Amino acid sequence: MQDIDKKTKIQKKAGINQTIFLKNQPKIIGSYAIVGPKEGKGNFAPYFDYIMKNDFFGEKTFEKAERKMLETAITGVIQNAKLQPKDIDLMIAGDLLNQIISSSYAARAFQFPFLGLYGACSTMAESLAVGSVLIDGGFFQNIVCCTGSHFSTAERQYRFPLELGNQRPPTSQWTVTGAGASVVSLQGDGPRITAVTFGKVVDWGINDVNNMGGAMAPAARDTLLAHLKNTKTKPDDYDLIVTGDLGKLGSEILIDLMEDEGVTLGLNYGDCGQMYYRREQKTLCGASGAGCCATVFNSYIMKKLKEGEYKKILFLPTGALLSTTSSQQGDTIPCVCHGIQIER
Amino acid sequence: MQDIDKKTKIQKKAGINQTIFLKNQPKIIGSYAIVGPKEGKGNFAPYFDYIMKNDFFGEKTFEKAERKMLETAITGVIQNAKLQPKDIDLMIAGDLLNQIISSSYAARAFQFPFLGLYGACSTMAESLAVGSVLIDGGFFQNIVCCTGSHFSTAERQYRFPLELGNQRPPTSQWTVTGAGASVVSLQGDGPRITAVTFGKVVDWGINDVNNMGGAMAPAARDTLLAHLKNTKTKPDDYDLIVTGDLGKLGSEILIDLMEDEGVTLGLNYGDCGQMYYRREQKTLCGASGAGCCATVFNSYIMKKLKEGEYKKILFLPTGALLSTTSSQQGDTIPCVCHGIQIER
Repeated sequence: MQDIDKKTKIQKKAGINQTIFLKNQPKIIGSYAIVGPKEGKGNFAPYFDYIMKNDFFGEKTFEKAERKMLETAITGVIQNAKLQPKDIDLMIAGDLLNQIISSSYAARAFQFPFLGLYGACSTMAESLAVGSVLIDGGFFQNIVCCTGSHFSTAERQYRFPLELGNQRPPTSQWTVTGAGASVVSLQGDGPRITAVTFGKVVDWGINDVNNMGGAMAPAARDTLLAHLKNTKTKPDDYDLIVTGDLGKLGSEILIDLMEDEGVTLGLNYGDCGQMYYRREQKTLCGASGAGCCATVFNSYIMKKLKEGEYKKILFLPTGALLSTTSSQQGDTIPCVCHGIQIER
Repeated sequence: MQDIDKKTKIQKKAGINQTIFLKNQPKIIGSYAIVGPKEGKGNFAPYFDYIMKNDFFGEKTFEKAERKMLETAITGVIQNAKLQPKDIDLMIAGDLLNQIISSSYAARAFQFPFLGLYGACSTMAESLAVGSVLIDGGFFQNIVCCTGSHFSTAERQYRFPLELGNQRPPTSQWTVTGAGASVVSLQGDGPRITAVTFGKVVDWGINDVNNMGGAMAPAARDTLLAHLKNTKTKPDDYDLIVTGDLGKLGSEILIDLMEDEGVTLGLNYGDCGQMYYRREQKTLCGASGAGCCATVFNSYIMKKLKEGEYKKILFLPTGALLSTTSSQQGDTIPCVCHGIQIER
């Protein structure tokens, strides 16, 4: 009790509420990323653990392929962490499909206690945030955090039947086919999660479902400002500040919004969605989907952290919390962003 | 670090993995339940805080009414806990609608950091489980945990257009229109959450979407057996063991399944769904929906805990983690159940 009062006091002093400082600094001891063929031709291709030959991955439906990707990522990350399935105490996962079926069915395949989340494309950060806090509190030893998305399941659930061959507006992004997983642990070796900022729901009134980047940028701004304030850091203190899938337009909007607040985002700022595909892959504003930053984080970023190229990063995935129903009923798009500070 | 190692060791000894013992025993310092008119004529009517006059609650769509119920429950529970909105550090919520829009839009109305969950009808337990563990670890002071459901939104999303007036099979249940919320806190006065069992995903192969009780009973069995084993308790040690919405059939199946394991559930066992409506309300197997156990827990059960009639209870809401897509693709129904042990 005394210990807790002390910790709470420290957090209050830092102007907390939103940012949690992790005293025991949970480690990310394993990572794994599996992607589809299009993603396997993108800029991060050399870093992925597994590139599928086609979008069906041996299954009869895209939905079952998405589930199998998640299962593959979970199996892969446990091996990468040099653990056995019996060592895993909890699985925290979510995805974009209605009722997060990909995650629930993947959880059925393993005998792990299961926490299902929904944070849209911010899910990788949401699961790492909850997972690292639960590890830091000493409640669990090893937690698998994962998420994923599939272009074809997302397209037909959120937008149009694939067969329609619909035209895409210039602000649209391409949902990544891929899944990423991390193992967070108290013991072992790996980059340490040192602070977590839980995001608020931010909605600046955008209702164009083909401009997710524009809708989500204000949420990234809100969490980034809170994190910098609560941790008393500035952008230059990080080797990398990386948002999830704001895309080309959204990431430019974020740079402008931060500039308005007197915070300059320099060359150490990047967006997974903006960087994901090559120009000739014709994805317009870049990549999106829960699998976007999940696969970049669990391949490229983790590698650079392990190699020491990055010593301190801030991972800021955003999520657009709308549904087809809310859009049809004329609602604007509420968004969220969680921040994960990771140090080597 | 030393403190954590000690705690982890204690848990390992208890045969843990699934059950977390909460050393600091977070308290439930506030509760609130709002329901629709049909629910306001049911067995728990005298205990609810607010009974709506009609299902629209002054809104143009049922979805917006569901959202407004959640917002009302959150405002109500903060008052009930004698707190101000600024005292709330985190909101943990989920619901049955695609992309949990009711919770996300409700979170937009408040400036709380937000964790969105999906656990279907187990969401009240999932949010209390995560919330109480985060409080116990000293990370937050006051957390709002809430969920809800609406008959009309659930019916048209999961089953048929309301206008169709479809016949309901005898095993079907009636989705509760209602929302419940709790405030979990380190300080203050109220029933204490002393242990939490995180559920695994259990699927015994039921694919009848009109028999959720039958599908979910094995998940309740799994978590109840784990909880009794890990806490070294027997059913008689609890004044109440209460499942969420197994309904008439599902709760009878659970009694049988437990009997097979040599565990007799006596008169201290009940199911919120089975007890919710009066016989003449023609709901067949009883109530269901995330709002079912959320409204019973945050009214009737909390009152009996506060008055001392219940000294120790085990709250075991179950959730069926299917979607219309998974059913259409021939999948069976994966289910989950989380256990919350509460003592006066």
